[in-house]
Amino acid sequence: MRATPLLRLHTPTATAALRERVRRPALLKKLADPADLAPLFNNDDYIGWSGFTGVGYPKVVPTAIADHVEFSKLQENPKTKKKFNLFVGASVGPEVEERWARMDMIARRYPHQVGREIAKGINDGRINFADKHLSMFPQDLVYGYYNLRKKHGEPRKPLDWAIVEATAITEEGAIVPGASVGATPEILQSAEKIIVEVNTLLPDLYGLHDINHSWIPPYRQPYLIKHVKDRIGEPAIPVDPDRIVAIVESRLPDNTGTNAPEDDTSRAIARHLMEFFSEEVSAGRLPKSLLPLQSGIGNVANSIIGGLAEGPFDRVRVWTEVLQDTFIRFFDSGKLSFATATSIRFSPEGFEHFYKNWANYKDRLLLRSQQVANSPEVIRRLGVIAMNTPLEVDIYAHANSTCALGSRMLNGVGGSADFLRNAKLSIMHTPSARHTKTDPTGISCIVPFASHIDQTEHDLDVVVTEQGLADLRGLAPRERAPVIIEKCAHPDYKDLLHEYYDRALHECLARGAGHEPHMLRNAFKMHLNLMEHGTMKIKGWD
Amino acid sequence: MRATPLLRLHTPTATAALRERVRRPALLKKLADPADLAPLFNNDDYIGWSGFTGVGYPKVVPTAIADHVEFSKLQENPKTKKKFNLFVGASVGPEVEERWARMDMIARRYPHQVGREIAKGINDGRINFADKHLSMFPQDLVYGYYNLRKKHGEPRKPLDWAIVEATAITEEGAIVPGASVGATPEILQSAEKIIVEVNTLLPDLYGLHDINHSWIPPYRQPYLIKHVKDRIGEPAIPVDPDRIVAIVESRLPDNTGTNAPEDDTSRAIARHLMEFFSEEVSAGRLPKSLLPLQSGIGNVANSIIGGLAEGPFDRVRVWTEVLQDTFIRFFDSGKLSFATATSIRFSPEGFEHFYKNWANYKDRLLLRSQQVANSPEVIRRLGVIAMNTPLEVDIYAHANSTCALGSRMLNGVGGSADFLRNAKLSIMHTPSARHTKTDPTGISCIVPFASHIDQTEHDLDVVVTEQGLADLRGLAPRERAPVIIEKCAHPDYKDLLHEYYDRALHECLARGAGHEPHMLRNAFKMHLNLMEHGTMKIKGWD
Repeated sequence: MRATPLLRLHTPTATAALRERVRRPALLKKLADPADLAPLFNNDDYIGWSGFTGVGYPKVVPTAIADHVEFSKLQENPKTKKKFNLFVGASVGPEVEERWARMDMIARRYPHQVGREIAKGINDGRINFADKHLSMFPQDLVYGYYNLRKKHGEPRKPLDWAIVEATAITEEGAIVPGASVGATPEILQSAEKIIVEVNTLLPDLYGLHDINHSWIPPYRQPYLIKHVKDRIGEPAIPVDPDRIVAIVESRLPDNTGTNAPEDDTSRAIARHLMEFFSEEVSAGRLPKSLLPLQSGIGNVANSIIGGLAEGPFDRVRVWTEVLQDTFIRFFDSGKLSFATATSIRFSPEGFEHFYKNWANYKDRLLLRSQQVANSPEVIRRLGVIAMNTPLEVDIYAHANSTCALGSRMLNGVGGSADFLRNAKLSIMHTPSARHTKTDPTGISCIVPFASHIDQTEHDLDVVVTEQGLADLRGLAPRERAPVIIEKCAHPDYKDLLHEYYDRALHECLARGAGHEPHMLRNAFKMHLNLMEHGTMKIKGWD
Repeated sequence: MRATPLLRLHTPTATAALRERVRRPALLKKLADPADLAPLFNNDDYIGWSGFTGVGYPKVVPTAIADHVEFSKLQENPKTKKKFNLFVGASVGPEVEERWARMDMIARRYPHQVGREIAKGINDGRINFADKHLSMFPQDLVYGYYNLRKKHGEPRKPLDWAIVEATAITEEGAIVPGASVGATPEILQSAEKIIVEVNTLLPDLYGLHDINHSWIPPYRQPYLIKHVKDRIGEPAIPVDPDRIVAIVESRLPDNTGTNAPEDDTSRAIARHLMEFFSEEVSAGRLPKSLLPLQSGIGNVANSIIGGLAEGPFDRVRVWTEVLQDTFIRFFDSGKLSFATATSIRFSPEGFEHFYKNWANYKDRLLLRSQQVANSPEVIRRLGVIAMNTPLEVDIYAHANSTCALGSRMLNGVGGSADFLRNAKLSIMHTPSARHTKTDPTGISCIVPFASHIDQTEHDLDVVVTEQGLADLRGLAPRERAPVIIEKCAHPDYKDLLHEYYDRALHECLARGAGHEPHMLRNAFKMHLNLMEHGTMKIKGWD
């Protein structure tokens, strides 16, 4: 069955701006009013959106769908209620995702999300969420792993709909994305019906992207990337034009906020890392220009990139998932020779500066799909230096990236494990402690046993807090624990953690089980105390 | 400083067999008596051996060293005591490794081991052991991560010594390995002094191996493998001949035992898997010849491969770590078109059959280094189907591959996570329960919270026991738990596990933390009961 032709209530007239961007005129005949599209979405539909870290997502149609649901009061009646299965490379803007979540319009959301309402829906049991390594989500979608139990419709394609943002459509009908690529190529490949939002407010970003075809085994090809700047694809995403059912014009910006501000803690962490990198260069284990860097989102990442912009390393390259504002400073410092990512998530002011000075950046920047940006293949080949923030790390270097107290989902594993597993240097950075309502250091980020494990002891080389840096390379678990506690734990917790380790060691050696000493009965005692008393500061281990 | 010339007490005469194998005559001048070499090894030396899964390891020199230590009673006096740092791709024969461990000659052993004595040394605190993904161990060795804290000697090379088995040395002085490649290329690359044991009992295996050079970033190259049979290197390992300090003749076989026998449980697991593969082929998610298979060691693996030898799938290919006896049957069935691994671990009878019928196998078989055999790059590109056995799996599909009750090391993570993270289908198979001294089903292999986590929930697609198969693809944690319990848990534990989940769900939803419901206070209650009462059968969760 082919996609049903849409009933068009009226066809809007294309603006001059839109005609300039849609360089395949036949597609303009599919220009639609978003309000006419909204009722076409059925309860339980499988929908993919473009978007990654809150940029490059569709804004007009998801808003029209929410308007329709709200104004028609569909959610008030179980018979008219609509809940959708939503698949997006990573997070999208709060005005759409948060609104859908608040209106209980999301049945399922894979593989990453950011926002209070969506997290609430997940943790309240209303939204089914599974986080998946960002490099693997697009391939699993194409494999058909997400529509195994799809209840209605033709199962030929995994998704009923793709709604994607474009900054242009080429003469061949290929999609030029906005400020992210993410999983858009595979979402387009996997959808029965495609709606394209052509954003004429943003510049036409033709040339910024490198799009390779996502073959599946046994036909998958090597990613022939040996340098961060290597291109292996073409500048736009090819699409079967018959599956494009509608074009919509958008003039809405990416709804990004400001970046997290640096503080003393983040700057101290960055200083420890700069010192460590310098030592690695001196020892000959890193070249003077370092190796390609991956850096997460947040204030520590900001301080690190800021530190590099002022640091001793020249001709630095970046192979990462997302670029945030400090990268502008890094580019402008002249020390960053090339950066590639799957998205650019600048603040509104950052974007303004960036688009205004586009000529300065365009030859030093490339966006790829998340399947390539996060691919183990390329990360390992290039020897990336990976830096990410966990919720907590345990004394043997297992890390929790996702679930507070083992159960409450924050955002998802994202690409952290893609990078940490495969990097030449796998680094996790975190403040040594966080505050609770009643205790400024009520949460220790170094714990006996991580309450959820996303990164294993086999995947981390370095743990760093504002207290210091623990170099774990080549250490056995019994060597790791004292080093992590001594270098990284907050002084309020050092004695407690040392005592846990010493007692566990004693008990486990006594029964011939001392490889990775634990007292299982006490493994989560600090977490349980936090739940009951608002602090991890326990009286002792008895 | 170059390697010191060795004092030679006497140079043995080369046998005709040895002269035939050492095709670079100058090297025969380095022929040595192992007894003369033994005293050259100093306390705290860093030593690399060839070998992987108990084949292709050096036998004569390690035995001579142990003889020297034993007969000179060196271990009885702290001043003469010798403990070495031992680095081998994976496990080696018990007559050498177990003996060294029993004699307390091992200070450090990376990254994998098999044997009662070595495990005892690790768990008693005498041996420092760290398990590492087998794909990463060789690169980390070359990076210099294992000699960061090396106390003596010239730090130019990570290892003081390499002792490797060869079945021939080429005219160019390159090493033709035995029945495994493992980390031998990188161990040779990393050693100051090299001793080669030329095994003239085994056939000259020239042509069986594919050896690519192990460049490091920023010079690392793509592994241009698109089919299991693709070669990307040459048949022998190039070595700087100046670093070869001695040649020794060996006529000792690989000391392998028989393979684990199949039983009803392993056959039931294999049946569930054959059925699952057939369904995947019917649904179009796998080709009729499947995709390249990886299979571990043990009786379940034997049953699976046996099942495939009699199954409906033709022209099957294998991309794995190690081949065991059932692969002979699989080859002989005509259904296996090509297999590649990093080692061949047959039983003595298996090897006899294999070497006798060498002509039947040689064009359908290739051994690669473990860095390539286990590389995420190739595993993901080829879409491997990975199957491995854990100690335990939890209700959300985190798996423990290494540490019993969280602390007691068995063998190490090996290559399990290399494959499970990157495979197209990541499968873990285990009996649903194991016996203790007092209870035939005293250990449930399905637990609320894995007591050590090596594979995360983001890495498993399928869990299978003799009870049934849980297809977890596309499921959120709250959907996964009931399926795993219902399909996989032993009937003795089903109610207990369902109750854990139901209570955890209730509690966590009540506090808005229900993404992955847990009762942390009870997470290890079944494990604690096992420690205290010899069974995981607890009375309840109160």
